[in-house]
Parts: sequence; C-alpha cells; structure tokens
Amino acid sequence: MKIGFIGLGNMGAPMALNLLKAGHTVNVFDLSAEAVKSLVDAGAHAADSAKAAVADVECVVTMLPAAAHVRSVLTAEDGVLAGIPKGVTIIDSSTIDPATVKACAEIATKHGNTFVDAPVSGGTGGAAAGTLTFMVGGSAASYEHVKPVLSAMGKNIVHCGDTGTGQVAKICNNLVLGITMAGVAEAMSLGEALGIDPKVLGSIINTSTGRCWSSDTYNPFPGLIETAPSSRGYTGGFGTDLMLKDLGLATDAAKFARQPVYLGALAQQLYQTMSTQGAGRLDFSAVIKLYRKDRDAG
Amino acid sequence: MKIGFIGLGNMGAPMALNLLKAGHTVNVFDLSAEAVKSLVDAGAHAADSAKAAVADVECVVTMLPAAAHVRSVLTAEDGVLAGIPKGVTIIDSSTIDPATVKACAEIATKHGNTFVDAPVSGGTGGAAAGTLTFMVGGSAASYEHVKPVLSAMGKNIVHCGDTGTGQVAKICNNLVLGITMAGVAEAMSLGEALGIDPKVLGSIINTSTGRCWSSDTYNPFPGLIETAPSSRGYTGGFGTDLMLKDLGLATDAAKFARQPVYLGALAQQLYQTMSTQGAGRLDFSAVIKLYRKDRDAG
Amino acid sequence: MKIGFIGLGNMGAPMALNLLKAGHTVNVFDLSAEAVKSLVDAGAHAADSAKAAVADVECVVTMLPAAAHVRSVLTAEDGVLAGIPKGVTIIDSSTIDPATVKACAEIATKHGNTFVDAPVSGGTGGAAAGTLTFMVGGSAASYEHVKPVLSAMGKNIVHCGDTGTGQVAKICNNLVLGITMAGVAEAMSLGEALGIDPKVLGSIINTSTGRCWSSDTYNPFPGLIETAPSSRGYTGGFGTDLMLKDLGLATDAAKFARQPVYLGALAQQLYQTMSTQGAGRLDFSAVIKLYRKDRDAG
Amino acid sequence: MKIGFIGLGNMGAPMALNLLKAGHTVNVFDLSAEAVKSLVDAGAHAADSAKAAVADVECVVTMLPAAAHVRSVLTAEDGVLAGIPKGVTIIDSSTIDPATVKACAEIATKHGNTFVDAPVSGGTGGAAAGTLTFMVGGSAASYEHVKPVLSAMGKNIVHCGDTGTGQVAKICNNLVLGITMAGVAEAMSLGEALGIDPKVLGSIINTSTGRCWSSDTYNPFPGLIETAPSSRGYTGGFGTDLMLKDLGLATDAAKFARQPVYLGALAQQLYQTMSTQGAGRLDFSAVIKLYRKDRDAG
Repeated sequence: MKIGFIGLGNMGAPMALNLLKAGHTVNVFDLSAEAVKSLVDAGAHAADSAKAAVADVECVVTMLPAAAHVRSVLTAEDGVLAGIPKGVTIIDSSTIDPATVKACAEIATKHGNTFVDAPVSGGTGGAAAGTLTFMVGGSAASYEHVKPVLSAMGKNIVHCGDTGTGQVAKICNNLVLGITMAGVAEAMSLGEALGIDPKVLGSIINTSTGRCWSSDTYNPFPGLIETAPSSRGYTGGFGTDLMLKDLGLATDAAKFARQPVYLGALAQQLYQTMSTQGAGRLDFSAVIKLYRKDRDAG
Repeated sequence: MKIGFIGLGNMGAPMALNLLKAGHTVNVFDLSAEAVKSLVDAGAHAADSAKAAVADVECVVTMLPAAAHVRSVLTAEDGVLAGIPKGVTIIDSSTIDPATVKACAEIATKHGNTFVDAPVSGGTGGAAAGTLTFMVGGSAASYEHVKPVLSAMGKNIVHCGDTGTGQVAKICNNLVLGITMAGVAEAMSLGEALGIDPKVLGSIINTSTGRCWSSDTYNPFPGLIETAPSSRGYTGGFGTDLMLKDLGLATDAAKFARQPVYLGALAQQLYQTMSTQGAGRLDFSAVIKLYRKDRDAG
Repeated sequence: MKIGFIGLGNMGAPMALNLLKAGHTVNVFDLSAEAVKSLVDAGAHAADSAKAAVADVECVVTMLPAAAHVRSVLTAEDGVLAGIPKGVTIIDSSTIDPATVKACAEIATKHGNTFVDAPVSGGTGGAAAGTLTFMVGGSAASYEHVKPVLSAMGKNIVHCGDTGTGQVAKICNNLVLGITMAGVAEAMSLGEALGIDPKVLGSIINTSTGRCWSSDTYNPFPGLIETAPSSRGYTGGFGTDLMLKDLGLATDAAKFARQPVYLGALAQQLYQTMSTQGAGRLDFSAVIKLYRKDRDAG
Repeated sequence: MKIGFIGLGNMGAPMALNLLKAGHTVNVFDLSAEAVKSLVDAGAHAADSAKAAVADVECVVTMLPAAAHVRSVLTAEDGVLAGIPKGVTIIDSSTIDPATVKACAEIATKHGNTFVDAPVSGGTGGAAAGTLTFMVGGSAASYEHVKPVLSAMGKNIVHCGDTGTGQVAKICNNLVLGITMAGVAEAMSLGEALGIDPKVLGSIINTSTGRCWSSDTYNPFPGLIETAPSSRGYTGGFGTDLMLKDLGLATDAAKFARQPVYLGALAQQLYQTMSTQGAGRLDFSAVIKLYRKDRDAG
C-alpha cells in the first residue's frame, strides 16, 4: 500500500520504518531534515510538505506532539487535506484530547475523508519492535480498513468504539496508571519508613489486593524489579513530562465532561512538582523521590 | 494443641471453627453469649473471661475490632496476661497500628510471653473457607512456631519481618488498594461520561498499564465482573467503613513516621464522604457512586 | 466619548447602562435582540454586528463569557477588528486566560490597536451600582487612557502591570477565594459536628488568624451573616459554575506556567462535584453542603 | 491567689511569669531544672512533682506538649489529682484533642475537681506580652471562675461553650489558617510565575475577596510584609511542626466525628513534606517554598 507518514519523532520514526519493512511504499514528511534523511536511507520517499506527502496515497498516518500540531497539519495551506485524494483515511496516532479528534473528524468528513484516532501504548521500545497497542476510535468499517496498516506497527489493534474513543481509552488508562504509580510510591515509602523490607512488602502487595502493573512490573522502589527504570536511576521508560501531559489531557477532558477527578488532579500536581524540580525527563516512577527525600532514592 | 481464642466476631468465629475442625482444643471468650454458644455447639469450651480462656493453653489467638480492645484484653485484670502461662505465644490477628503492636509486645515480653502480629486478608469468605492470608510479624523462630496454628485457618502464611511488620504489610497493601479502587472508579466514570463502552474500557485497562486488582478482579463499574460486589448492588465484600478504618491506620502510621501520604489522605476523605452519606456498610467499591451521582450506579 | 460595547449579559448590560448614565454615546451589539432593545430604550444605538458597533468609536468594551467568544468577536469577518478605526483601544472585561489575552493583544497591535485586559470583581450588584473593581493589564499610558471610561462603571481601577496581568490578578484572587471558602466550610462543619456553636466559632475565627472574607463577610454557614447567600438558601451571589470556571482558568494557567496548585486543583473537584450534583447555579458558598449532607444545610 | 503551674516550656514559662507579675503566688513544676530555676529566680516556689506543686493551691494551670502528657500529669502517682484539694479547678492550656479533654474532665469530676480547657493563640510573643487569646471550654460558672487567672496572662478570654469546645475552636481556626496559608502561597507563586508583581498581587488580594490574615498580615511571599517571618527568612513565628501538629489534631478530630476534611488533609501533607525535608522549625509560611523551588524563596 502507498502510505503518507507525517511526524518522524521518537515514536513516529520507528513506526514508519516498520511500515517500510512490511513492504509498504511510504512518503514521509517532518520538519527535521535529519529525521527525514534517516527514513529515506531506509527506503522512504521524502516530501517537502504534508500536502506533498499525501498526494497519491491510499492511507495517511500522523504522529505528532499535541492537538495544535494535528489540527495545523490537517488544515494548513500545505497540509494533509490540501493534498489528499478524496476517500482516503487519515489515521492519527498522536495522543490528544477527544474533542479535537471530533473536530478534526468533522473537518475531514466535509472534505470527503475519514479521520480515525489510534493512539498507542508501548513506548519507543514497542514502536521499534512493532509490538505497540493501538486503541482505535472509528466505525467498524474504518477499524477493519486500518487494521492491516496498524498491524505492521503493532501487536494489539483494539477497536474502542466511535471516533474519539481511542483517545478516551488511552487517557483513562493513563489516568489509572498515574494514580497507581504514585499510590505504590506512597505505600512503598511508608512501608520502608515503618521498617518493613521493601522486597517483602513488594512481594506481598503483588500477591494481594494491592497488585497492579505499577507494583508487579514497574515498581518505583529501586532494586525490586531488575528491568524497571527504578533499577537504573529512573532513566529510559515513560518520562514524567509525558505522564504530566496525559494527566493534563485527563483533567481537561474531565472538565469538559463535567466530571470530578479528585485523585487524578492531585496526581497531576505531584508529577508537576517533579517536573518543576527538574525531573521531567526521568521516568515517571521517579515520583517516589517526593516521598523519599532524605534517602538514597536510587 | 490447646488454644485460647478471644473475639468471635464475623472473622473470629469462622477462624475458631477452623481450629476446631483441624483437631485443636479451643477455649473461647467473647462478650456476646450468642457468639460463644455457637462455638460451644461446635465443640469449643466456653470461658467467662479472657483470663479463664488462656489458663492452660499452648497458644492464644486474639481477633478484635481495634487497638484499644487488644490492649485492654491483654492487660486487664481478667485479661490474657493475668491468666496465661509463661512462654506461651499470643497471636494477634486484629488489624491495628504497628505502634500498639510494639507496645503490646514489650508488655508481653516483660511477662515472659511472645506477642506476634498476624493480621489477615481474605475477608469473611476466606475466614470460613480457611483460605486467609496471614501477614506475620515476629522473629523467625516465632514465625515457625505459629505457622502450624495459622495454617489451620489460612492458606498463605507470610513472614513479613520483625514484630509489627505484619501490620505494616497489611496497612501498606490496603493503602494501595484504597487508592487504586478510587482511581479506577474515577477513570471508569470519566470514560463513561466521554462515551466509551465501560466493558471495552475495562478490558483495555486490564490488558494495559492501568491493570490492577481493583480493575481486573473487583471492578467498581456495575456489570463488568459478575462476581464483584458492583454487580450485586455493592452488597457483601469489604465494607466502606473497614476500608476507612484501614486508611485511618495508614494515615496515622504515616503521621507517626513523618511521611506524606497525599493520595492516601485524599482517598480517606472520599470513603469518609461515602460513610457520612450513609454508605458505610456497602462494599468499598461503591465509592464510584461519588462520581456517577446522576446515573443509575447499580 | 463614543464607545462600542459588545456583550450585554448579566454583567455587560448594567455596565453599558452606566456608560450611558455618565453621558457617553454607546453603540451596542449582542446576539440577544431583547438585551439590545433594553439598552436602546435607555439611549444606546443598536448595531447589527460587532463590526458595525465599532465603526466610528473612540473606545471599545467587550464583556463575553469565555476566551473563544473574545477571540471570535475580535477576529471574525464582521468582528471588531474588521470595523474599528486604527489607534482605538479595545478594553476586554471578560474573565479569560492570560495566554489568550496576549494572543489577542498581538493581533490587535498588528492591526494598529491596543488591547487592554480589565476583568472585574464585584458581581452583578457591583455592575448595577457602578462600584466594580477593574483589574487592568496594559502599559501605564493605556491604563491612564482607559481609566476615565472604566471609572464610569467602577470604583477601583487598579493597574496590575503589563498586558495579561489584569487576568492574572483576577485568577489568583479567585484561586484564594475558592480555597478559603471551601476551607471555611470544612472548619465550620467540623466545629458543628464537634459540638461548638457555629456563631461562637465564626466570631472566634473572625478575630483570629483564620480570619478571611469567606468567614467574616460571606460565611457559608447559614444564619451567621444576614446579608450572605448562606442566609437565603444560597441564592444570588457568585454562582458555583462561575467559581468552577475561574478555578479552571487557574489550574489551566498553572499547567501553562508549570506550577503546582495542590489546593486549587482539589477545590476545583469539590465545586465540580457540587455542579455535577445539580448545584451549579447556587452561590459557591453552597460547597458547605458537601460537608453537611445529613443536616439541614439551609 | 495561690496557683500551681505545670509545664515551663517556651509558652509556659512566660505565662507563669505573668502570673507572678500579677501578684499571684505560684508553685512551679517542670522536668527541666533549668526552667524551674529561672522561674524561682523570679519569685516562684519550686516543687519536685506535680503532686507537690498543687498541694495547697486555689487553681492549677497545665501547659504541656501533647495529650499523653496532660493525661499522665493528671493521673500519675505523683500527679495533679494525687495532690490537689477537692473543689480546685484545673485549667489546661495545652493544645490537645477534644476527646482527651472530655476524658480528663470526667476523671477530674470523679475526683471532685473541675477541668477546663483553655488553649491559647498568640505564640511566644503573646505569652511574653501577656496578650494571648484564651479559648475556654467549660460551664459559664467555670468560665467566670478562671477568667481572672487567665486575664493575668492574656487579653481576650473567650467562652466557647462546654468542656472541650475551647480545643474545638482552636483546632477549627488553625485548620482554616493552615489551608489559607497554603492557598495564598499557591496563588502568590502562580501569580509570580505568570508575571505579575507580587506586591501588586498582594495588595489586590488584600482589598478583594481573597483577603485573609495569611495574606494581609502574614503573607508568605518574602518582602511584602516587613513584620512577617517571610521577610526574615521564615525564622521566628509559628513553626511548621506546630502547624503540622494542629492539622493532625484537626484530621484526627474529623475522623472521630466522621467528617470529611479534604483541604485540611491535603494541607497536612504539604506541611508534612516541608517537615520531612527538614523545614519543620521554619515558620509555617515557608510552605511557599514547595511552590517556588527553583527561585530564591527568601
């Protein structure tokens, strides 16, 4: 298939690469010439605008930092809608708010195109390995249509419902994640202060009702899980600033939906404090440092 | 073995019954004549005080509502220490604060006895089925000593470390539990308000990084998990007032240890609000009602 | 002076009326024909667009519900910038985010106009009586320029600093207000539950270090202050939904500025809960109902 | 009058001194020989136990760090009740929980004595100057009886209601204080980050609805109020650890009364974080440092 790919950042570049590996023809566009060159070396065709990249494609994938970029790439003079043939589907894998998704979908529909939200989880590791999870929002037909393309980049392609629900699923999952991570950090630090061996505490929680991914797979206490960022100085992994962005999307969506999010709003302040104190690029499990100030927190 | 058992409430009664079933001789004491009678019918010996119940035993088990009861049953004129032979171990399975455990252990030691904290998880169902988890605080020798007794009442007998760490483990696990349950409630309600099918959202979270016991085993959203209290009007299960008690122990222990517990303190207020509004006896997953006020919350 | 006035809602209408009373010539525009007619009856000139209302004026005042309206009224085809002569100052008295103010100011500057933010406090009562406080953001020269116009509508015309700082002042003040009101509600309810006479408690706080406007002028406990909304069933006053809007602006601005706002974010959830439960139109001091569920909360 | 005074700490010593200055005969007891000597030098009579200090007095005043001390000084073998004549009133000026007050009052009543709670506000400065505020809990007759004694040490002697309400008043006032101070810190820091001059912001809040003692008298932003601890590096004043103690009393009392205290519980965590990070002895307005990490926070 001939695919236009816009946005070759830490996530987009390996995703586009996997499309190439799967045998697709890929036109790429990014503001970074370096990023483009790297893909061209792997067999992609460079375009000098989003418009040019989508001129003759059967499908478009966008992977951008925030809602403003998605909106602009879509509607700018040299943007996607200016160049795309009618009937072609646009898959946006950025993580943005559901309201922007719906607005973009309306604009695309007027133009004769379908806009599908398909945010991912799995991080840069999953992007490179082609094992991402895609949470797809769109009609059943759209889902069937985009599934083969997404399957070249991910392992689980989940249909979440109508347009926007892909983002809702991602936001709600990460809301739970941000809360559980800070909760586990709180409990592990309390246990340590009260004199229990953190390894023992971790293993009890992991076989009890406190069990969660933040405890059994990604425990923030250093040394408990060898493969977790907490065991390598909180490097790599999912950055605090990214968690902060997702909790911002969650509390914004809650404001829009007129829903209270007590723990989410508080967790957002904790990650904000970490970020303000200069730890924005550390893995988000470094939030445990807020609770273990005077100790060697790894 | 000859065992003295003090406290025949919803948890204590079935636990004592399991000791009888395992062939132990059991002296029982409780302020409720009815509770005592029910155990006597099953083969226990009634005593008219804690002192009398422990006069000639090899081991004592106490299962009481709160720290004040434990302290009083231990030290009262007609209490355990007044009647117990030297060298006998006292196992306290109540859920109380670690500081009281340490104080009780000191008093017991002076008296020539060993005091072991062994709080449980598993609820009344686990107590009846003999499948409780015991979190044991005490020396390695004490742990080996009490293990056979506890094995008649539970399935997992975990050594957590020195005296008091059994309570620390329980408190820290339930701190995570209280937070994750409210966090899942928040996310499920937000997702519903934003238009995603709760079943789809639940299954995405359960296979993603938001995965936790509160989501995959005990989801607060009605209808998702057939066996969860949320699917039967939040009846049965682990009561809101019990969760509130445990979060109270956690925030108290944190105050004592000079540790912040941001999310725990906030979660405590949420369950307190539920309790104040009359929902203290509903399962604690009913906390989702705070977020779904205008809807049929099961 | 000849003034164009856009936005004749609960606040805008009496403000425009006060400009007329002060002898100014006023062109008015609003989507509601009824609102326009009422001003025309008082001597204003009706215009059929914002563009028409500002065609020949010396000054423009806008009073609109939210940032999107301000931006649109400014830049639409039949909007303010399409009709305004060069050199004329636009005073925006809406409460919006400082980032939008700066964006609007840039657009206005390019067009040869000055954009001044001048949000108000004092409510509909202050608007009618002409006793509003205006918090003005702009250069010293702009401040001197707009002061005579604003003086016809308000009593305190405060210069806060450069463009946008009027909004910053308003947002920060209301952040404190939203927090102190909920804090006083919490303390009054706790005191009541602990058995102190609320009148005695109120008077102690008012002469001690807990003293604040939310306690000594607008106490949320019914019956303490005769003139407060709490003494008339929480009707009138400053609506919960307006406080919710302002706390939303505060937490958004904090996100933008990368600042934590722990108490503000939590207070926002409390007012959100009130609003979700149907109390959005009650005075914001009704937040005390969250703490006095089972009692007659006035 | 002949008065027994127990507890000669930072507050108690100057209070006892003022009793001497007013012409009363004062027997003093404290565990610190140095503290006792200093009072004896000023004319007091040293006693070697609480029991001895109250043997022949007409009134007893206790000023102790926490509930456990009050209970112990009252009931110990060489404590107050062991030495006091029947009919004599015990005034406890410590800040403790209302439940302990009631328990102590019951014990005292059985013994033929009256126990009156009379916690203070005004700090060490007020204690030295004799300008403390006393919040008195007890019958009207008790209030009239203790008023002359308290008047030698303070300026405002307020009758709050029955036994325990003195503590309730103090706790509720300081609950508001702890919240407003953190709220003002949050708003001042946000305003600073958004570019408004803190002096301007402070003066706007102080004449608007955000007005509070924490802003107009004790503003946490350095340099705004010359006499506030924020203008002298947060030294002197009311220590963070003391505020933490009082918020602990408030959240404990709320737990006891089954009342939610959302903002109070969160504020407690903020001061706890400050204390954990080593700032427990700084004035509590130093909580603003949590929000101004990267700046020179005075």
